[in-house]
Amino acid sequence: MPEVAIIMGSDSDMQKIAQCFEIFEEFNIPFEVVVSSAHRTPEETKAWAKTAKERGVKVIIAAAGGAAHLPGVVASYTTLPVIGVPIETALLGGLDSVLSILQMPSGIPVGTMPVGKSSGINAALFAISILALSNPALSVSLENYRSVQSKKVMARNEKLQKVGYKNYLKEFGEFK
Amino acid sequence: MPEVAIIMGSDSDMQKIAQCFEIFEEFNIPFEVVVSSAHRTPEETKAWAKTAKERGVKVIIAAAGGAAHLPGVVASYTTLPVIGVPIETALLGGLDSVLSILQMPSGIPVGTMPVGKSSGINAALFAISILALSNPALSVSLENYRSVQSKKVMARNEKLQKVGYKNYLKEFGEFK
Amino acid sequence: MPEVAIIMGSDSDMQKIAQCFEIFEEFNIPFEVVVSSAHRTPEETKAWAKTAKERGVKVIIAAAGGAAHLPGVVASYTTLPVIGVPIETALLGGLDSVLSILQMPSGIPVGTMPVGKSSGINAALFAISILALSNPALSVSLENYRSVQSKKVMARNEKLQKVGYKNYLKEFGEFK
Amino acid sequence: MPEVAIIMGSDSDMQKIAQCFEIFEEFNIPFEVVVSSAHRTPEETKAWAKTAKERGVKVIIAAAGGAAHLPGVVASYTTLPVIGVPIETALLGGLDSVLSILQMPSGIPVGTMPVGKSSGINAALFAISILALSNPALSVSLENYRSVQSKKVMARNEKLQKVGYKNYLKEFGEFK
Amino acid sequence: MPEVAIIMGSDSDMQKIAQCFEIFEEFNIPFEVVVSSAHRTPEETKAWAKTAKERGVKVIIAAAGGAAHLPGVVASYTTLPVIGVPIETALLGGLDSVLSILQMPSGIPVGTMPVGKSSGINAALFAISILALSNPALSVSLENYRSVQSKKVMARNEKLQKVGYKNYLKEFGEFK
Amino acid sequence: MPEVAIIMGSDSDMQKIAQCFEIFEEFNIPFEVVVSSAHRTPEETKAWAKTAKERGVKVIIAAAGGAAHLPGVVASYTTLPVIGVPIETALLGGLDSVLSILQMPSGIPVGTMPVGKSSGINAALFAISILALSNPALSVSLENYRSVQSKKVMARNEKLQKVGYKNYLKEFGEFK
Amino acid sequence: MPEVAIIMGSDSDMQKIAQCFEIFEEFNIPFEVVVSSAHRTPEETKAWAKTAKERGVKVIIAAAGGAAHLPGVVASYTTLPVIGVPIETALLGGLDSVLSILQMPSGIPVGTMPVGKSSGINAALFAISILALSNPALSVSLENYRSVQSKKVMARNEKLQKVGYKNYLKEFGEFK
Amino acid sequence: MPEVAIIMGSDSDMQKIAQCFEIFEEFNIPFEVVVSSAHRTPEETKAWAKTAKERGVKVIIAAAGGAAHLPGVVASYTTLPVIGVPIETALLGGLDSVLSILQMPSGIPVGTMPVGKSSGINAALFAISILALSNPALSVSLENYRSVQSKKVMARNEKLQKVGYKNYLKEFGEFK
Repeated sequence: MPEVAIIMGSDSDMQKIAQCFEIFEEFNIPFEVVVSSAHRTPEETKAWAKTAKERGVKVIIAAAGGAAHLPGVVASYTTLPVIGVPIETALLGGLDSVLSILQMPSGIPVGTMPVGKSSGINAALFAISILALSNPALSVSLENYRSVQSKKVMARNEKLQKVGYKNYLKEFGEFK
Repeated sequence: MPEVAIIMGSDSDMQKIAQCFEIFEEFNIPFEVVVSSAHRTPEETKAWAKTAKERGVKVIIAAAGGAAHLPGVVASYTTLPVIGVPIETALLGGLDSVLSILQMPSGIPVGTMPVGKSSGINAALFAISILALSNPALSVSLENYRSVQSKKVMARNEKLQKVGYKNYLKEFGEFK
Repeated sequence: MPEVAIIMGSDSDMQKIAQCFEIFEEFNIPFEVVVSSAHRTPEETKAWAKTAKERGVKVIIAAAGGAAHLPGVVASYTTLPVIGVPIETALLGGLDSVLSILQMPSGIPVGTMPVGKSSGINAALFAISILALSNPALSVSLENYRSVQSKKVMARNEKLQKVGYKNYLKEFGEFK
Repeated sequence: MPEVAIIMGSDSDMQKIAQCFEIFEEFNIPFEVVVSSAHRTPEETKAWAKTAKERGVKVIIAAAGGAAHLPGVVASYTTLPVIGVPIETALLGGLDSVLSILQMPSGIPVGTMPVGKSSGINAALFAISILALSNPALSVSLENYRSVQSKKVMARNEKLQKVGYKNYLKEFGEFK
Repeated sequence: MPEVAIIMGSDSDMQKIAQCFEIFEEFNIPFEVVVSSAHRTPEETKAWAKTAKERGVKVIIAAAGGAAHLPGVVASYTTLPVIGVPIETALLGGLDSVLSILQMPSGIPVGTMPVGKSSGINAALFAISILALSNPALSVSLENYRSVQSKKVMARNEKLQKVGYKNYLKEFGEFK
Repeated sequence: MPEVAIIMGSDSDMQKIAQCFEIFEEFNIPFEVVVSSAHRTPEETKAWAKTAKERGVKVIIAAAGGAAHLPGVVASYTTLPVIGVPIETALLGGLDSVLSILQMPSGIPVGTMPVGKSSGINAALFAISILALSNPALSVSLENYRSVQSKKVMARNEKLQKVGYKNYLKEFGEFK
Repeated sequence: MPEVAIIMGSDSDMQKIAQCFEIFEEFNIPFEVVVSSAHRTPEETKAWAKTAKERGVKVIIAAAGGAAHLPGVVASYTTLPVIGVPIETALLGGLDSVLSILQMPSGIPVGTMPVGKSSGINAALFAISILALSNPALSVSLENYRSVQSKKVMARNEKLQKVGYKNYLKEFGEFK
Repeated sequence: MPEVAIIMGSDSDMQKIAQCFEIFEEFNIPFEVVVSSAHRTPEETKAWAKTAKERGVKVIIAAAGGAAHLPGVVASYTTLPVIGVPIETALLGGLDSVLSILQMPSGIPVGTMPVGKSSGINAALFAISILALSNPALSVSLENYRSVQSKKVMARNEKLQKVGYKNYLKEFGEFK
């Protein structure tokens, strides 16, 4: 039974939030992934959103670009927390996606994630921070993830201090 | 039987497109006006959009602000032409409304109107230009409207030439 | 006799709205395509716009970029519905094109299409939604187009459910 | 014991999210409100964020404007879900606040709310949607809230249908 | 015989460039002022632009807001230098006006003035700098204007040095 | 003796306005080109601007990017007409360059050209439109240029009508 | 002998950075204030900037709006640290001022302050942080200022905790 | 003992400010470089910032992108002057980075550098202008640097005058 449900308006967005899937696998969170459009398959999107809760879903992640209505449309059919992921576009670097997701009217909230490289990862981690509220083991895993993350930054800095910035710049990339 | 249907996400938008109603009355076009939200009353909005054609509606005008999903959501449920009217907001003067309506994905078109003072009037005139395609009398009325409009500008200019810019600036407003 | 007339300010914009032509061919809509500039050939543009109605044209699509005056200039010479197509530019991703087309003053409406990939397709579909009002067969074709479009999204989702997101990501592209 | 903790960088932001408090009172959610600045009282902010979990807090709402670092700084010290509320500013209507909160780097998620009138209400409702996951009674209350909200929109529409748009416009405001 | 011709799309823009008229009067430059719209009176605008040269006009100033096509449309009908004046709007403070005037395509130049308080004055002074090329007396007047302008700034500074910033702030405005 | 003087803040901008030179050669206008920075060589820039008039210069073209102060700084030292050319940048596609040149304060006008492909050509043509005021032969050449330009667009359209859009798209580019 | 020199392009900007003066008085830093324009009094501005060092000035604060060249122009004539203060405008809330000051080319740095309420205060405090590097007593004063500032925030929070948010909202303002 | 300390939120930003290091080496300024994140290693960042003064650091340079909190967070823990360096992003070309660094609240100043090519160089030169206040030899070096920089521009111009713009364009690049 999926705890998180991920919906995309177009399969062309899938690669852009693929890191999201990796995070959920790393944390052993069961999740479902569907392609369904707010505009091209509105009935299917509605049915999916309305039944999410009974499928066991606790958090929904909805990704879309341009006039990105999907997160808001999904939120209009469920009271589950909906996380919106704006996909980059050519117009203003994706400001259209951001504003279409962010500026929801009173009463139907959507929690918006950044546009760009950190979109998928942060959507997953935000969902996990919600799930962890009622799952102490997951909460520990999340703390550990944060700790490992900190240590990676520190390790990079240690290496930088050891080899100096000139050598670091030459080898640049291996720590990525 | 209404030929045009006007939908607003919130009654607070009604005054902003009130000139729209006046135009339809001037042209004797029967129209309906409803308040229904893409997010707060999605079922009602969907039902309304799906039945518009059978109510005799030929053109839909949908006005919304912020994450302005209403025009796109309505368009997803009908093949009637949908005209989107972005309502001004405090963020960037309404660029959020504009982009949420304008940047529709392939397959579900919305014809977007300007944000600002000309929104309501132009939405009505655009709808009338569509209706006039199969209504020769309406087409003549529209040509006349344009002609009157031109003459008003010309009359203002004639007055300006007659009284000079100094006097015109003093009396400014009476031609409005 | 063309039912739709497409005008571009520059032949360099032609490839960007080429999908527009394909849609009209798919729907068997006769159309004309011209290159004529609002600024470089204003007399020709004017003559073309003024005679569109008598050539049998019902809907005009005008595409331009930058200080994109073409749709507005055409609209000033005809009461036919004018659909504006903003072409992408380097400045803000085409916001100059969008605003030059969108922000028309009271009295001369232009229905603006998105800037980007969906521009051409949506301009064609919007024109067809207008033509379909007085053409029941076309209305049926448009409903079918929508239905096929929905089924394509559903088919992608079915495939995704069958093969899983990992395999789907690997094969990515074949459904495009 | 507070379930939600609300932090503001400045007491001048309090009135702007005051509706947030009303929602929590309406839903009987215990909450705390503090003023603490990411920049002027960084130690206090840090201590507050690090101890939120042990105070029983489940969700944090952080409001700030301009270079709005508070939500991100709080998120860097806790794994609880952090909801960011951008406060309007004079620059681009608050786009500085939005981007400073939204564009968080990989690993430290913040769920961003709209800038403008719906900020406070939606932050509260989003927090409640999270709390409701482990509180069935709250979940029912939230469904009811949505239902009442829908009915208010429908009641406005019914009134509009009954009195007509002209009378509605005259009385405008009473339904607000 | 007017040396400068000023055209506005709407008489509502007249007050915004009124300082322009004062400058021309101060410099004794004969000028004409007309209201004519690119969109509402395109034929009149065209006729006016095409005959400007034979009326003795040397420089044209065209002011418009929103989808501000007037300067470009005028420029398409004349080879006289055209100065574009963007009028402030509610959208992005007038960025729509700026971009509609500024981003002209190759071949039809328009020299764009600032949006805001200095619009009218600078349009007039720019026109005068052009006229002064073949009018030595005017060139001297322009140099004098600049010199007086410098002295005003210097006088303000002298006063500031004399009375100190505290007193200056109190009396603030009298030098304006 | 140069009639036009072109100044660039950096030689890296030269290629971006190279078409400007071609236009002046085509019209046989003597011109000078210098590299001098508003910030890195302020004394040289000042000396150059102050002596432009005595070198016979009638119009100045100043190109710069980013905090593009060069046109304004040059204009502060001369009463000759100054044409500002904003160079594209990575930030917002060059909006920084545009605003730094455009938004000059009252008293020191700069006529701003578009940012992008038409920058150099239009700067040259605008300068020529100024020079043509006192040079009837040049005025004729400019009219001819416009006429040739119109004919090129018409020729493209004729070809398009002859070969059809499909073949035109295939051969696309040869008319460029 | 002034340690800090403040220059404004227009006396209309003085009130907007008046808090700057108060800070310097509070810290007993001698300062000079002048009005001199980059464009209207370029010679005076240049002379002032070139002699600042010999007048004992260590840090320069330059405030300007629109095409805000003053900070950059001053920086081109001195190697003293120059702090740029963007003044709010109607266009995009002052983004023109920000970008004109911020986007300086390589070699001539300007340290830019925020646009808005904190402009003047932060310019002063940034200057003081520079002066404090060679003035231990000033460094202590600056630490104290920070400490007082922190305590003010804490006092507001204490009051909030004591009276509760409802009473605090009623009395709102007295702590300002 | 380092006089300047450079901190980056991510080692992926290092290459973008590498020219910064070269400038400090050219001027023989001892400096330290660390990677530490405002969000991923907040404790380390805080400890580093709080101890900077006792390590002998006089000026801090902090580079970050997106929701670029690092400069502000560092500034909240020290009274040393903090120079913020916005790193380019895909959203609006880095306007998110700019605004997150620039728009600091009253009391905690950050001097912001340009986004783009001149970021690193100008950050270093601005730091040196501060250090030079108490280091006469450094002040001379900085004057020399400026002088060499001016001469490079002049040399390019001399070459341009000698070879002409056509040859210069051909060889373009060798002076870079």
